[in-house]
Amino acid sequence: MELQLLNTLRDHNPIVFNIANFVTVQDVANGLNALGASPIMSAEVQEAETMVQIAGAVCINLGTLTTTQIDQMRVVGKLANQYHKPVVLDPVAVGAVPYRKEVALALLSDFQVDVIRGNAGEIAALAGMDWQAKGNDAGSGQGDLVEIAQACAQQFQCCVILSGPTDVITDGQRVVKVANGTPLFQRHVGSGDLLSSIVAAFTAVSPTDVYQAAQVACLVLAGAGELVASQLTADRPATFAIDLIDRLSLVTVSEIQTIAKVD
Amino acid sequence: MELQLLNTLRDHNPIVFNIANFVTVQDVANGLNALGASPIMSAEVQEAETMVQIAGAVCINLGTLTTTQIDQMRVVGKLANQYHKPVVLDPVAVGAVPYRKEVALALLSDFQVDVIRGNAGEIAALAGMDWQAKGNDAGSGQGDLVEIAQACAQQFQCCVILSGPTDVITDGQRVVKVANGTPLFQRHVGSGDLLSSIVAAFTAVSPTDVYQAAQVACLVLAGAGELVASQLTADRPATFAIDLIDRLSLVTVSEIQTIAKVD
Amino acid sequence: MELQLLNTLRDHNPIVFNIANFVTVQDVANGLNALGASPIMSAEVQEAETMVQIAGAVCINLGTLTTTQIDQMRVVGKLANQYHKPVVLDPVAVGAVPYRKEVALALLSDFQVDVIRGNAGEIAALAGMDWQAKGNDAGSGQGDLVEIAQACAQQFQCCVILSGPTDVITDGQRVVKVANGTPLFQRHVGSGDLLSSIVAAFTAVSPTDVYQAAQVACLVLAGAGELVASQLTADRPATFAIDLIDRLSLVTVSEIQTIAKVD
Repeated sequence: MELQLLNTLRDHNPIVFNIANFVTVQDVANGLNALGASPIMSAEVQEAETMVQIAGAVCINLGTLTTTQIDQMRVVGKLANQYHKPVVLDPVAVGAVPYRKEVALALLSDFQVDVIRGNAGEIAALAGMDWQAKGNDAGSGQGDLVEIAQACAQQFQCCVILSGPTDVITDGQRVVKVANGTPLFQRHVGSGDLLSSIVAAFTAVSPTDVYQAAQVACLVLAGAGELVASQLTADRPATFAIDLIDRLSLVTVSEIQTIAKVD
Repeated sequence: MELQLLNTLRDHNPIVFNIANFVTVQDVANGLNALGASPIMSAEVQEAETMVQIAGAVCINLGTLTTTQIDQMRVVGKLANQYHKPVVLDPVAVGAVPYRKEVALALLSDFQVDVIRGNAGEIAALAGMDWQAKGNDAGSGQGDLVEIAQACAQQFQCCVILSGPTDVITDGQRVVKVANGTPLFQRHVGSGDLLSSIVAAFTAVSPTDVYQAAQVACLVLAGAGELVASQLTADRPATFAIDLIDRLSLVTVSEIQTIAKVD
Repeated sequence: MELQLLNTLRDHNPIVFNIANFVTVQDVANGLNALGASPIMSAEVQEAETMVQIAGAVCINLGTLTTTQIDQMRVVGKLANQYHKPVVLDPVAVGAVPYRKEVALALLSDFQVDVIRGNAGEIAALAGMDWQAKGNDAGSGQGDLVEIAQACAQQFQCCVILSGPTDVITDGQRVVKVANGTPLFQRHVGSGDLLSSIVAAFTAVSPTDVYQAAQVACLVLAGAGELVASQLTADRPATFAIDLIDRLSLVTVSEIQTIAKVD
């Protein structure tokens, strides 16, 4: 894995344009900033073209969608395709909410996405496979996670990250698993949103190989979180979130290489 | 008081659907998550029915209302009644802003609320009693807080929490007071919003006795805050907020029982 | 400089009405609260008049503008003029996004602003001077920052704060520079938004001398940040943000006087 992309990202400070989940937007912006990217959030379609032009990549998050925002997502997605900017889609809660699944499928037919990042329940729903999601959470199911991720990637001809205790990254054929992390990611709201935006940041500095970008993003975030958790003596989700953002600013390629569990 | 409801909540991990105040939504989501509930926020009326169906309870917060959001609140409130899901209303700033009072009264006539949680200025305004609110803050007045809370509860036939240095919880007849807490709650924005959503979380695991749920919610949050404050050596509102969320994750029934000041 | 305004602010606890950037709104609210002001955020034009009436000052932030919000900004700005409440404008990203520059110029022709607070790229754009902004960031250019700030102040007949490593404060003629601060302000999203709202808080207690209020606001925030940074042993942007809010609550006039670098 080309972990040096972390240094490339810090050198280039790419702008990531986020159509954001308003619940977690502050943490996402701070996480991107700490990592070395430059976040920009916009909710107004009239500035969509400029935002896409100045951005290195786009992250579209369905977390708190509205019909107005869906219109903006459609315009932004098409513009991103037109300007050849990578697009990451975070299909929050499509496993639990049929309306969201409809919206996500419609968007996926309107423009081409480079990476879909979701939990097992979300990726299974997009792939049309059986799974019991629970609200925003992954839920539980019997399916093979690699097969689910591959089916989703093949269907939408993109890279898929099925994130969880082990992140599964696939381009439909090849598969990489990142087993780093900590259960504290599930104890803090917005870990998935942050991952999606960090994936976008890495695609901005690796637009011709988003599969590589996706892997590095997963390993950097999971590794930083694991390093933070190893120094906490109790289950402190808010302290974890603060330390995680600090660590995204400080973590080095060699620190991550030392603990990497990549398969 | 049935403090064991805290363990019940952690065992059941209820989904709480919040129509949220965007100022404090991230803290509320993290607080709910830390406590053991599963927060979901939605701003789109087209997914309202699914959200109500998957939720164990609903919390409607007027903190940053818009006309679009008010329409959503009305639909969600009626659906919650239809699906027998407990509804908590947080009437932010109805004491200071006549438009908000109108909105709150209209909503209260459109659907049945199980718990209203507000400060003295807000509860007095809904009860039609004399009080000087100040913006989002409680303000000051001469009335008896128990009488104000009871009048409000009787008028809307629901449970009322008038929160402050001492929380007054009433079903219109019975009254319980929780005297735990710390002045730091007032130094951090969103303490009231968090309490309202935590009340909703407890009603989800005690839908047939929301009066009990309201008491436990007040004691758990006030107790956790008091425990945090007792370990701070200075008036640090941001550190307090972080430690509070951590503590909501860690606090046990017996820790709270030891310090409970319930009357 | 009349640093005693900090004590005046804490004595008066002024309400600051913010039309907010949703990315940073929670930090801004907590920062204002910690400092000793009382934040209120509203997104609904139907309550605009009450909000302006109860507020001591208004802060209008373009950070996540929408056409609906622009309409609200126009109404609120005119009402603030009518009720003689100071208005602070934060023209986020007008240097990078032509649409935002148009919006800002239209608003500036619709009502009178007391203070404009932006980075070099934003202030240069409003003044019609040459500069390369980068997204939300200041970018780089060759112009003299004092000349840029003065030109902007003269054009809009208001006070201008061009903030950065050194803050330049001018009423178009007089100039004060505040050289306190820390690079960590740039590592945390929303430092500029917080400064703008803190400026509004100080104008609320110094409405007849907003130039004085602007200087004190810059020095208090930059000084508090410098004090925090001097105690951090590494580049920890999230810890910085938490400690900064704590410090806004604790910092004294004499602590700031001791380190003030004002020119």
